[in-house]
Amino acid sequence: DPNLKVFSLNSNFDLAQEIAAAIGVELGKCSVTSFSDGEVQINIEESIRGCDVYVIQSTSQPVNENLMELLIMIDALKRASAKTINIVMPYYGYARQDRKARAREPITAKLVANLLETAGAHRVITLDLHAPQIQGFFDILIDHLVAVPILADHFKEKDLSDIVIVSPDHGGVTRARKMADRLKAPIAIIDKRRPRPNVAEVMNIIGNIEGKTAILIDDIIDTAGTITLAANALVENGAKEVYACCTHPVLSGPAIERIQNSTIKELVVTNSIVLSEDKKIDKIVGLSVAPLIAEAIIRVHEEQSVSTLFD
Amino acid sequence: DPNLKVFSLNSNFDLAQEIAAAIGVELGKCSVTSFSDGEVQINIEESIRGCDVYVIQSTSQPVNENLMELLIMIDALKRASAKTINIVMPYYGYARQDRKARAREPITAKLVANLLETAGAHRVITLDLHAPQIQGFFDILIDHLVAVPILADHFKEKDLSDIVIVSPDHGGVTRARKMADRLKAPIAIIDKRRPRPNVAEVMNIIGNIEGKTAILIDDIIDTAGTITLAANALVENGAKEVYACCTHPVLSGPAIERIQNSTIKELVVTNSIVLSEDKKIDKIVGLSVAPLIAEAIIRVHEEQSVSTLFD
Ligand SMILES: Nc1ncnc2c1ncn2[C@@H]1O[C@H](COP(=O)(O)O)[C@@H](O)[C@H]1O
Ligand SMILES: Nc1ncnc2c1ncn2[C@@H]1O[C@H](COP(=O)(O)O)[C@@H](O)[C@H]1O
Repeated sequence: DPNLKVFSLNSNFDLAQEIAAAIGVELGKCSVTSFSDGEVQINIEESIRGCDVYVIQSTSQPVNENLMELLIMIDALKRASAKTINIVMPYYGYARQDRKARAREPITAKLVANLLETAGAHRVITLDLHAPQIQGFFDILIDHLVAVPILADHFKEKDLSDIVIVSPDHGGVTRARKMADRLKAPIAIIDKRRPRPNVAEVMNIIGNIEGKTAILIDDIIDTAGTITLAANALVENGAKEVYACCTHPVLSGPAIERIQNSTIKELVVTNSIVLSEDKKIDKIVGLSVAPLIAEAIIRVHEEQSVSTLFD
Repeated sequence: DPNLKVFSLNSNFDLAQEIAAAIGVELGKCSVTSFSDGEVQINIEESIRGCDVYVIQSTSQPVNENLMELLIMIDALKRASAKTINIVMPYYGYARQDRKARAREPITAKLVANLLETAGAHRVITLDLHAPQIQGFFDILIDHLVAVPILADHFKEKDLSDIVIVSPDHGGVTRARKMADRLKAPIAIIDKRRPRPNVAEVMNIIGNIEGKTAILIDDIIDTAGTITLAANALVENGAKEVYACCTHPVLSGPAIERIQNSTIKELVVTNSIVLSEDKKIDKIVGLSVAPLIAEAIIRVHEEQSVSTLFD
């Protein structure tokens, strides 16, 4: 369909190429660079008049650059008469700032939603939001994809026996439950608590993990403090071996060192965020979300094409 | 007035302190830092409920960081029940992307205006916009300050004789005229043209500059190509000496080297943009816009206080 255009900005170029190939289109031509003073310079180099445009961009690090690139691209597409502007954000940055945890904090995840709408986005396709409530921050349509099946399939292929899926905190139990259903396994939960103020946290494990192969699952692994402490606690408490997986490998600060030095045998992640060269260590295995996203784009585009029949 | 609060973000802390001192208030307490993954983290550390808040931030380099800091701060202030949120942007980044010069370009200066309004800004105070039309990009009030008097006063104090004010291009003639009025001097214009395609530009000078002290004036000096070529052309054509001045010293890329090696005797700039240490060379003289901005804040605040009488 010549009215379907896929553009990549600078965060996830390889993923975008994979997605375009899976859909059977070429990536749209555009140049996304900076002026000498660091201002983003965008030139769309082909007509997109009347087209349904899909822009692939994760707002991963450098988050403010990537977000501004995206907003400026949306502005350019709008002024170039795109019919619909569909934003594909495999990783939605600022998702953890989704509520006022303290007085006078911003809710940046909502601000980002407003900025995307203001710039002119018509629809957002995203993956494993830190909180599903963020869907409600949008007045435009949002398609929420889930990477659990991709992660689960990877572990199915390993043919591990006697596994238990472990949530590293209370917030992730629903996700662990979904994974466990796919692998027909039980779940366990790491129940961190601080017995008294200024005393180290105790890692209490709820559920049976002794002698089992534990698979930790989280949505985001950032500095990797939680996940590596959880892995070590599992081993100390008799787990046979520990795997870990997450959708979004933010991996900032001490993350790589911590993972390297932890009892985690293998960390499985997706390409929602690109791993820079210094983060590519043997323990980390990457899976692609390109087929999942390509399918979503095709489905959304069919919907949009149908709706034009009734325009 | 305890209802007047001035906050500084990270672009112009010294200027903000000067402004607060001139108004006679302390800077508001807030911490503006980054999380480990580079996401902006803002905590406002005092109550601002019911206050008229002024936030000082230029969207100079790093422009996307500085703009996101500003938008997130506005969101935090809004959710903390500020009565009015007034944005003081001594330098308005992306101002040069104020029109579609080519097909399918963004108009990022308009996008920035929309983003500020969406975040919750009530009013914008800014200085020497690249194009005055940008005022029309806002539906909220915008106060547009002018640095020409400050720059002119500096040259008045030098007691130079037989001066001519020179605009480095056609776009700046109005600005040069304003400066000339204050210094009771004539103007001249550098009239660049390319005689044939692929032939070097000719710097034609309109107006009499022979034996005179020329003062070049521009709003922004970025890579300093235009201004240094203009200075050299003035000297070649018989100017006695050449000064230059601008409001916004962007000074990116080769700017400092070019200025150092040019015939410019002194470059006078304001602190709308902070000069990093490597840009502080003897030829560059800095003037403060703090008194100008402090006066504007006091005037705007009086207006806002009066209006509450009729609330
Ligand atoms: N980029 C970030 N890195 C670390 N912590 C964050 C980040 N963004 C927000 N937070 C904090 O993380 C908390 C929310 O995380 P969670 O409890 O996992 O939903 C809030 O208290 C936020 O202030
Ligand atoms: N940050 C920037 N650095 C250099 N050129 C820019 C920048 N932003 C916009 N422009 C270009 O500068 C031109 C406008 O400059 P002017 O003619 O001086 O108003 C437009 O063609 C823009 O594409």
